[in-house]
Amino acid sequence: MAHALDGLLDQVRLLWHVMGRAAESLHRDEPVTLGGRAVLEFLVRNGPAVVPDIARGRHVTRQHIQALVNALRELRLVSLDDNPAHRRSALVRLTPEGRKAIDRMTRRERRLLDGLALKARPDDLRRAAATLSAVREALGGRP
Amino acid sequence: MAHALDGLLDQVRLLWHVMGRAAESLHRDEPVTLGGRAVLEFLVRNGPAVVPDIARGRHVTRQHIQALVNALRELRLVSLDDNPAHRRSALVRLTPEGRKAIDRMTRRERRLLDGLALKARPDDLRRAAATLSAVREALGGRP
Repeated sequence: MAHALDGLLDQVRLLWHVMGRAAESLHRDEPVTLGGRAVLEFLVRNGPAVVPDIARGRHVTRQHIQALVNALRELRLVSLDDNPAHRRSALVRLTPEGRKAIDRMTRRERRLLDGLALKARPDDLRRAAATLSAVREALGGRP
Repeated sequence: MAHALDGLLDQVRLLWHVMGRAAESLHRDEPVTLGGRAVLEFLVRNGPAVVPDIARGRHVTRQHIQALVNALRELRLVSLDDNPAHRRSALVRLTPEGRKAIDRMTRRERRLLDGLALKARPDDLRRAAATLSAVREALGGRP
């Protein structure tokens, strides 16, 4: 069991790096970092959110998300609004430019993924995703 | 297909962050970073190697590996030897202290993994690993 899990975790690490390099090359003309892209995508999926919620959703620290949000704000891709529910956490919101940027990046990724010659069936992909989610839950991340 | 692949890639990103946080907490008393740990593990598996080989094996840049090797060398966990085969690339080699450090970290990880309450069978884990390897190959990383 532990050996099979080791092998899977190593594949996760290796694929993560390959995904990062593919995305950097795909988005090399965008000013947004991959971390910034993940924040924009979170806001598309979940709507306006405060930094602690984004951090929890992505399993990273608040400090990390705060730095990404600051950079996105300088690029005018997100705005920070007063938040009646949390006096100390401003609500992070996509600007129209931010929405355009993440839509453009997502379309480009979609074209890349659609063009892949992949030796795996959709069922394999879904099953692998479920297995990774179970491992994440066991390791202490929310499922 | 693309939707199933999207879902899998998102699970990879999420699990990668959870693995990183679990490892940071597990190894909080070690001076070695997670990147440094990956270099030490590469040297255990493959023996002494030059920086470009380690970078290729982990799908990251040479500059990134060089910085990790420099930090490990300051900690006296690796040594750099003259390399008759590559005049410009010194051979990176584990020191006895480096070997002890990676063995200690690996034992600690093994205890953590053995203790996980995992809702996935070894077969699921192996199949997921094979699927991730196929995705990596399609994305341009070596299988």
